[in-house]
Amino acid sequence: MAERIKLALVGIGKIARDQHLPAIAADNAFELVAAVSRSGRVEGVPNFNDIAALIESGLPVDAVSLCTPPVGRHRIAAQALAAGLHVMLEKPPGATLAEVHQLQAQAAAGSGRSLFATWHSRHAAGVDAARAWLADKQIKQAAIVWREDIRVWHPGQEWILEAGGLGVFDPGINALSIVTSILPGALRLESAKLVFPAGRGAPIAAGLAMVLGEAAPVSADFDFRPTWPQSWDITVETDRGTLMLTEGGARLWIDGEEQRTDGIGEYPALYRRFAELVAAGRSDCDLRPMALVADAFLLGERTETDPFAF
Amino acid sequence: MAERIKLALVGIGKIARDQHLPAIAADNAFELVAAVSRSGRVEGVPNFNDIAALIESGLPVDAVSLCTPPVGRHRIAAQALAAGLHVMLEKPPGATLAEVHQLQAQAAAGSGRSLFATWHSRHAAGVDAARAWLADKQIKQAAIVWREDIRVWHPGQEWILEAGGLGVFDPGINALSIVTSILPGALRLESAKLVFPAGRGAPIAAGLAMVLGEAAPVSADFDFRPTWPQSWDITVETDRGTLMLTEGGARLWIDGEEQRTDGIGEYPALYRRFAELVAAGRSDCDLRPMALVADAFLLGERTETDPFAF
Repeated sequence: MAERIKLALVGIGKIARDQHLPAIAADNAFELVAAVSRSGRVEGVPNFNDIAALIESGLPVDAVSLCTPPVGRHRIAAQALAAGLHVMLEKPPGATLAEVHQLQAQAAAGSGRSLFATWHSRHAAGVDAARAWLADKQIKQAAIVWREDIRVWHPGQEWILEAGGLGVFDPGINALSIVTSILPGALRLESAKLVFPAGRGAPIAAGLAMVLGEAAPVSADFDFRPTWPQSWDITVETDRGTLMLTEGGARLWIDGEEQRTDGIGEYPALYRRFAELVAAGRSDCDLRPMALVADAFLLGERTETDPFAF
Repeated sequence: MAERIKLALVGIGKIARDQHLPAIAADNAFELVAAVSRSGRVEGVPNFNDIAALIESGLPVDAVSLCTPPVGRHRIAAQALAAGLHVMLEKPPGATLAEVHQLQAQAAAGSGRSLFATWHSRHAAGVDAARAWLADKQIKQAAIVWREDIRVWHPGQEWILEAGGLGVFDPGINALSIVTSILPGALRLESAKLVFPAGRGAPIAAGLAMVLGEAAPVSADFDFRPTWPQSWDITVETDRGTLMLTEGGARLWIDGEEQRTDGIGEYPALYRRFAELVAAGRSDCDLRPMALVADAFLLGERTETDPFAF
């Protein structure tokens, strides 16, 4: 067996504990050698307060996986790349497009360092089969409904409603990562509505009107407020039937009939892909989902709604 | 002399009359053959209500120059490219990044059609000399101050304060087009403040904190409200002296001493460049200024200020 990739996990919060640590533990390609966090700790490995302390420690590390909030992630990633490490980024890959472009340039300038901007929802069980089924169809229209209770799924994550935290686009970008991956053709935004709670810097709800290719409408309804039901659904109407992805891409339906899907799980698939990229010395950094979000902020009409408290 | 480029001007408003029509009239490479506008008219040439009517008319046309507002420009540009025309775009080149990417792909897919995303301020008299002087200097910091009275410079242009109209970034993007052109290295946004008048969809003032390369701070102060003085100034402090561009790039100063500059004028230079691109069958579409603006909307903190009326 090849030498395992010595990995440090940076940002020990909810997503690190829920997804990254189990996925890393289950993947033979990786050896978790350190954790970096201002507050969280991981048992059984050395813990560092920041990336500089990790690098200065002299501990042998090959790669870092960053699951800190997007604002501030660029500085950590740039330090890691400068230290010769491979870098895997949680979604979204940064707080701005320009800073991710800069990381891309930095990674490309080095030799053999991989930069991996992950989109975990692209590895949901139904996504590959959906893409394959849609490849030879003509798309008539598509609709995204992504409604989740922020209090349940992001308890106490105040940063998510701060400027740069993306608000409801934090989950919504997962849907955009799926549609940019499965719909054949380019997707562009025509109009957007953004609903900001009074006193908050990021929207709690949003509606997007997009166009695929020449004329197929693609709508998105993102809402952080519904307590029930929760929806993570994408419906695509084609010239030869209707496809649905539900539960964030985990389940696939064609004309109302559920299809068999498989997959090793979103985060296990991300780490498998990261190991492939590191082995090949390649990068994977698709900014289309993030550019659509930037466009929504650029073009969107803003309205204000009631204050929100977690 | 080569055959002149048969040009239609689309969007007959203030900028068309103030800048485009005189520049076209003075340039032997172009022959104005039509005007397209829902409201404005140009004497002495056929006038059409929309681009479809121009194309259907069968009038021989080689190229269009679009100076309609950014929202809606994509549809016109896509129709023109589909009809085999060269396309020149006023700044900003569209309402979203994705739609300009789509135009780039469309132009690249055709053979020999030019797409030119113009940034007129890059052709201000002092800009080339500023770039040349800065090329071998180390940049310590830079500051943009861009303050103009919206009532004087954009009288009654309500669209500019609507969502997608960019607000104070409509002039501010001119400054960003200059700094991305003259400062050596990549520029990224670190934080932004956006000030929206109550009930308006676009900011009337903004402050940006950017970083050039690794660590040089670049600030921008954009304001649409000052009635006096008006400022369109860029100051760049280097290891070997301080450069200032004033009056939107028209005048250049090194360590307080004004430098000789020359230039044929911003819009004449744009049309000269467009003629070169058409002759060479090439495109020129630099989206960096627009990506910085999208990043400012994505990351910026929003505050509300007094309502604004023209």
